[in-house]
Amino acid sequence: MKPDNIFSDIPDNPEKEIFERLGGSGQVTIERIISNGHASPATGWYDADTNEWVIVLRGEARLSFEDRTSVHLRAGDYLNLPAHRKHRVDWTTPDRETVWLAVHYRD
Amino acid sequence: MKPDNIFSDIPDNPEKEIFERLGGSGQVTIERIISNGHASPATGWYDADTNEWVIVLRGEARLSFEDRTSVHLRAGDYLNLPAHRKHRVDWTTPDRETVWLAVHYRD
Repeated sequence: MKPDNIFSDIPDNPEKEIFERLGGSGQVTIERIISNGHASPATGWYDADTNEWVIVLRGEARLSFEDRTSVHLRAGDYLNLPAHRKHRVDWTTPDRETVWLAVHYRD
Repeated sequence: MKPDNIFSDIPDNPEKEIFERLGGSGQVTIERIISNGHASPATGWYDADTNEWVIVLRGEARLSFEDRTSVHLRAGDYLNLPAHRKHRVDWTTPDRETVWLAVHYRD
């Protein structure tokens, strides 16, 4: 059994955010997300059918919510986003890639 | 919505491994584990009914398996342990705490 590393195989300056499934089952998806100065499209929200537990492992990001609150996330910070909690990524640091780990799961 | 940080509130030199639920549902448990030079009991294996996806976020560890293979994990390394894949923690670095994130989930 050989481990993979979550910081491996990060492309230089990807044009879009990269979403990659690392594991899970029919009930849960474990995903790596790599951002590099990306933000969500200016209009629209992520509005997911599943809950999302998310942690920033490298880099920095700012998420905002439909109620106009926002949160700044640094390495190690984690949040739980219940299903249909509309959110968007306002900003990720342009200095380096931001590596997220997300766990999508049902109630 | 305020984030928590996975590296916060780590006690100095805990006598035992510390397991703390960070989130999840009936289907999935997201857990922080802190080891500080701990190993599993000399006899016996972890033999879980659920699958476990696990990543080392800080520190180092060595896991071994019933088939006598073992794996050394450094920061960022992750593994998927299917249910009933018997394993034990042989060693974690005594130099500092080892912080794990584990996702326990059903098929």
